[in-house]
Amino acid sequence: MRYFARVQYLGTDFSGFQVQQGKRTVQGELCRALAETLGTPVRVTGCSRTDAGVHAKDFCITIDADGGTIPPDALPFAAARFLPWDISLISAKECDDSFHVRYDVTAKEYLYRLVNRKVSSPFDVHRAWCLARPIPIEGLSLMRRAAAYFIGTQDFSAFTAEGGKVMSHVRTLSRFTVEKQGDEYLFRVRADGFLYHMVRILVGTLVETAFGRYRPEDMREILDSRDRSCAGMTAPPDGLYLDAVFYEKDANRFL
Amino acid sequence: MRYFARVQYLGTDFSGFQVQQGKRTVQGELCRALAETLGTPVRVTGCSRTDAGVHAKDFCITIDADGGTIPPDALPFAAARFLPWDISLISAKECDDSFHVRYDVTAKEYLYRLVNRKVSSPFDVHRAWCLARPIPIEGLSLMRRAAAYFIGTQDFSAFTAEGGKVMSHVRTLSRFTVEKQGDEYLFRVRADGFLYHMVRILVGTLVETAFGRYRPEDMREILDSRDRSCAGMTAPPDGLYLDAVFYEKDANRFL
Repeated sequence: MRYFARVQYLGTDFSGFQVQQGKRTVQGELCRALAETLGTPVRVTGCSRTDAGVHAKDFCITIDADGGTIPPDALPFAAARFLPWDISLISAKECDDSFHVRYDVTAKEYLYRLVNRKVSSPFDVHRAWCLARPIPIEGLSLMRRAAAYFIGTQDFSAFTAEGGKVMSHVRTLSRFTVEKQGDEYLFRVRADGFLYHMVRILVGTLVETAFGRYRPEDMREILDSRDRSCAGMTAPPDGLYLDAVFYEKDANRFL
Repeated sequence: MRYFARVQYLGTDFSGFQVQQGKRTVQGELCRALAETLGTPVRVTGCSRTDAGVHAKDFCITIDADGGTIPPDALPFAAARFLPWDISLISAKECDDSFHVRYDVTAKEYLYRLVNRKVSSPFDVHRAWCLARPIPIEGLSLMRRAAAYFIGTQDFSAFTAEGGKVMSHVRTLSRFTVEKQGDEYLFRVRADGFLYHMVRILVGTLVETAFGRYRPEDMREILDSRDRSCAGMTAPPDGLYLDAVFYEKDANRFL
């Protein structure tokens, strides 16, 4: 039996998604809990990797089980008994072998929450970037102008940290918006794929633009440099949420 | 020096506001942290008590310190170093001795969050009542009709748990609204004062009304009974937030 499932997790107490020896990871907890639920060893494959402390409101996995006999509709309730409180399995469907939960992704969207208050609220700790230094009034429009430079197909080498092992640094951004709601800034970035730390460096660079370290038009030059040291700081993981994962409409027949 | 301060706390890991021997309480942590901040013993008085697990987005305290020499404006930043992550001191002002942070309250407003999803999200755990059983479509209007019975000055004996030690159970409710936002129900209750467990029993009774255990017009009879056993269940503390505290406009001169 092969399941496709949507999960949510609060990343705070995880060393990221991917299994690592001796660390608490989302994949590790899912494997353990789903093996207990199904009474058989399982293989869990994720749509993406997320860093330590990064959250997911919509993360997709496939579960390959030798002897899974629980109907997909019942899996969320069955698994809830074995999952820790910071992971939920929201829904599950049966899934075709020809579908790949990672390679068949057509786009992903991340949300980044920044709360700009002199004193951070306990409700935002670990769930947003709590930034005390006031973003100047013109910061919002500066960030929006800077964000526009990233739309389209470009080489994002300047916006990735060492440690990414991919060959190509070219990605296509279809959305990069900045909204302000009260003392909160919401960044939304959608692309066909993301490099290691890419969203966090994009957000960090925008925030430094708001403070005047860069002009919006400098983004062009930073992209062209392909040099990480030209871009801004890496925003903390606490504010980052994988918010939506998209597949070909065609994939619906597998899901 | 006497300070008036507004604080926020996430109630999950506290045995309520009030100091209790051997337990972690908000008042206990505030006393310890503010004594360290000010370098002198302090007395902390709260505007209210909250139960274990109940949160506060706007809780008011006074701080009496023998030798406090930190200007009120600087207190939030000074205290942040000593406060645990789940308490924040948002603002502070100098305060007159004639003001009493608890007796001078004219009204308080609580928010109660109920999330009605088959599988609860990790983002809501401990921050809402995560109720799996679907509230029927007519539930919202039933709850609104029931809520209307509580407006005005009434005896709320049927809506308080043993353990409250007050003489009078008469309170004046000026607001009791129920809103639905997606799969979330938001209850707002404002009154001149609240009895022990009152909001939680009011919300629990409304939810049982949504499921058909009571008719909205039964609220009249339950109020008249003054009998706790006639009212519904006590909703869990996780969804409850003290959301606003009001003082006489006149009190502004002390604050």
